[in-house]
Amino acid sequence: MIYLDNAASSFPKPPEVINAMMECMKEYAGNPGRGSHALANQAARVIFQARQEIAKLFGIAHAEDVIFTQNTTESLNLAIQGFLKPGDHVITTMLEHNSVRRPLEYMKRKYQIEITYVSVDSKGLMNPQDIYSALKGNTKMIVASHASNLTGSIIDLHSIGEFAGKHGICFLVDAAQTAGVLDIDVHEMNIQMLAAPGHKSLYGPQGTGFLYVHPSIELEPLMYGGTGGNSESIDQPKVRPDRYESGTRNTVGIAGLLAGIQFIQKKGIANIRDHELQLTRKILHGLNQYERIKILGPDQLSLRAPVVSFVIDGLDSTELGFILDKYYQIAVRTGLHCTPLAHKASGSSDTGAARVSVGFFNTEEEIDIFLYAISEILKEM
Amino acid sequence: MIYLDNAASSFPKPPEVINAMMECMKEYAGNPGRGSHALANQAARVIFQARQEIAKLFGIAHAEDVIFTQNTTESLNLAIQGFLKPGDHVITTMLEHNSVRRPLEYMKRKYQIEITYVSVDSKGLMNPQDIYSALKGNTKMIVASHASNLTGSIIDLHSIGEFAGKHGICFLVDAAQTAGVLDIDVHEMNIQMLAAPGHKSLYGPQGTGFLYVHPSIELEPLMYGGTGGNSESIDQPKVRPDRYESGTRNTVGIAGLLAGIQFIQKKGIANIRDHELQLTRKILHGLNQYERIKILGPDQLSLRAPVVSFVIDGLDSTELGFILDKYYQIAVRTGLHCTPLAHKASGSSDTGAARVSVGFFNTEEEIDIFLYAISEILKEM
Repeated sequence: MIYLDNAASSFPKPPEVINAMMECMKEYAGNPGRGSHALANQAARVIFQARQEIAKLFGIAHAEDVIFTQNTTESLNLAIQGFLKPGDHVITTMLEHNSVRRPLEYMKRKYQIEITYVSVDSKGLMNPQDIYSALKGNTKMIVASHASNLTGSIIDLHSIGEFAGKHGICFLVDAAQTAGVLDIDVHEMNIQMLAAPGHKSLYGPQGTGFLYVHPSIELEPLMYGGTGGNSESIDQPKVRPDRYESGTRNTVGIAGLLAGIQFIQKKGIANIRDHELQLTRKILHGLNQYERIKILGPDQLSLRAPVVSFVIDGLDSTELGFILDKYYQIAVRTGLHCTPLAHKASGSSDTGAARVSVGFFNTEEEIDIFLYAISEILKEM
Repeated sequence: MIYLDNAASSFPKPPEVINAMMECMKEYAGNPGRGSHALANQAARVIFQARQEIAKLFGIAHAEDVIFTQNTTESLNLAIQGFLKPGDHVITTMLEHNSVRRPLEYMKRKYQIEITYVSVDSKGLMNPQDIYSALKGNTKMIVASHASNLTGSIIDLHSIGEFAGKHGICFLVDAAQTAGVLDIDVHEMNIQMLAAPGHKSLYGPQGTGFLYVHPSIELEPLMYGGTGGNSESIDQPKVRPDRYESGTRNTVGIAGLLAGIQFIQKKGIANIRDHELQLTRKILHGLNQYERIKILGPDQLSLRAPVVSFVIDGLDSTELGFILDKYYQIAVRTGLHCTPLAHKASGSSDTGAARVSVGFFNTEEEIDIFLYAISEILKEM
C-alpha cells in the first residue's frame, strides 16, 4: 500500500508514537488530574509535557494557554462559538474548510453575526488587500486557513497578523494542513488563536488536537463539567486549561502526540518540509506532462503546502481513486473535500478532485509508482 | 500497584484492547469516512462495528443513533445543550456529577431554563416519588445518574422511565458508573438519551464515549464542521451519526473500545458484576468493623454500583490517599468528587472522601491488602 492521503491523517505513524501509546495503556492509563495516586500523576505529567512541547513548537509563552481537544473541528468550534457575540463581523476566505464555514454560518443563523468571504483566484490564491478592504467597524475576527486542504495554497500569516494586530482584531488560524510542516510562531505572527490537529503533520493519533488561546481572550466554553479542581462551584473555573477541558482527557492519544512532536523535533521540521516539498515538486512535475490533467492550486512550490489536487478530464475523481486503490494499492482522497467554496473558485465543484498528499515516510520511489499508475490509467482511457 | 480507582478510569485494560489499538495504529490509522481507499474503509468498518456492538449491548434498535464522543461530559453537553429550549423545566437530582449540573446551570444562566434538584437522603437514596412531585407543565426533561460516583447509590431507571414516558418527557441517563456493569436497556427502560464513557466499565481507552439519541429527538449539534457527506451544504446534514460527529473520529480509541466491549461480552456482564459486587461486599464488611470509619451510601449491596466512599474520623482523605499511595502502592481517589450536592447530602463537603472502586481485574487478595493497610493506618493514628 502506498499511502498518499496524509492531509486527511498521516500514516504510517512513527514507531515511537505507537510505543508511547502502548506504554501508556500498559503502565499508567489512570485518569489525569482526577486522582492523587501514582498512575494518575504520571498521566497528568505526560499531558503537561505535551502541552509544553506544543507551546515550544509554536512560540506560545504559557503552556496553560494550550487547550487539548479531540480534533481541529472542536478547536475551531470552541474558538468561533466561544468568541463571537451577536452583531460581530468576521472576515474569512473562500478557502475555508466546513469546520470553519459551518460554525460561522451557525453563528450567523443564531446570533446574526456577519460574515465576509474574501474571494480567491482560480489558483486558490488570495490577495491580503481584499481582507484589509473588508474591514468594518464591527469586525471582531479574521479566520483563515494557513493552507487550503484542497488547493494547498498558503496565505501570508505575517501580513494578516500584523493587520489584525494594528486594528485590535482577533486573528484565528486553522493550521490543519500546516502545523508541523510550515513554521508557525503565534507571537511573531500575532496569532491570537491557533487550531491544529494532532493526527496529521504532528504524527500523533486520531482523537487529538489543540487550540491555543491568547491570555487576553476569554472564551465561553463549549462544554461544562468536571474539571478536577474547583469542584464545589456551579460555574466553570476561570483557570486554564481546566476552563476549556471538562471531562477526562484522551491520555493515551496525548501520550502518542507527545511522541509525535518529539519525533518531528528530532528529524527537524525544516528537513521534513524539504523532503515533502521535494516529493510534491515531483508530483507536480509529473502530472504537468499531461494536457488532460488540470492541477488545482498555485504553480509555485513556495506557495504550497505538500498537497496536490487534480482533475483528469473525462474521468471522475471517485473512479480514479477506486482504480488507484484496487489495482495499484495507492491511497489518495477523491470527491469533494469539505470545502465547497474552494471547489467553486477552482472550478471543481462538479468534478470533485483527486488529492495526493505526502508525508515524512513517503519516498521518491512511491511517487514514481504513482506517476506510472497515472500514465497507465491515461493510456487506458 | 493495587489499582482501586476504576470509577475514574478502569485499569489495567484487557490485552485485547491494547492489541486492537496497536493493530489500528500499525495497519489502518487512515481517516474513517474521509477517503475512498482501503485504509480509510477499514477504519470506517471498525467504527461501524463498534456502533453496532454498543447498540446490541444497550437495546438500541438502530446503530446510527449511537454518537461517538470523546467522553461522557461531551455526551451530556450535547444532550443537555442540544435539547433544552428557553423556559424549559428540568428535573434532576442532588447526586449528579458536575458534568450534568454545570451544563444545566449554564443553560439556566443563558436560556432561563428552570432546574429542580430532587433531594436524596444521607445514604444517597432518592425517592422516585420526589421526581414525580416535581413535575410541572413545562417539564421537558429528567436527567439522572444511574449510580452516583460518590455514594454508589443506584436509582430505579424502570420506574422513572415509565413515568417520563407517560408524561412525554425526555429521560436522559448518565451511565458513567454503570455502563458495562449494570444492565441497561434503553427500550425497556424508556431511556431517550444515554450518555456513557468508553474508558470505565466498557474497558476501552480514554478519549472515548457515546451518546444514544432516540430517533424522535432532534438535537442542535454542539459542533459544526466536516462530516464527509453533504459537504456542499452550509448546514450540518440531518443524517445520523454524521450530524453530531463533525471532524475526524478517534479511530484508534474506538478500535480499543470495540475490543473492550467484546471482552466484557465474552466474560459476561453478569459475571463481571457478581465479581465486582463480591469484592465490594468485602470492602464494605471490612470497613464496617471500625467505628471511626463512616461509609457513604446505602448499606444494601443491591442498591450500589461497585463504588465505596468513606471518611475516617480525624484523618483527611487526601492524607489517607497519600499514605495508601506512597507506603502501600494502593491507588484510590480522594478529596471532592465533582459532585458537590452529593457531598452535601452525605455530610462530606468539608472532609471530602476516599473512594475505592473495583474492576474486573481486582482480586480478593488485593482487597485483603487494602483492608490490612487501613487497619495499620488506624492503629498509627
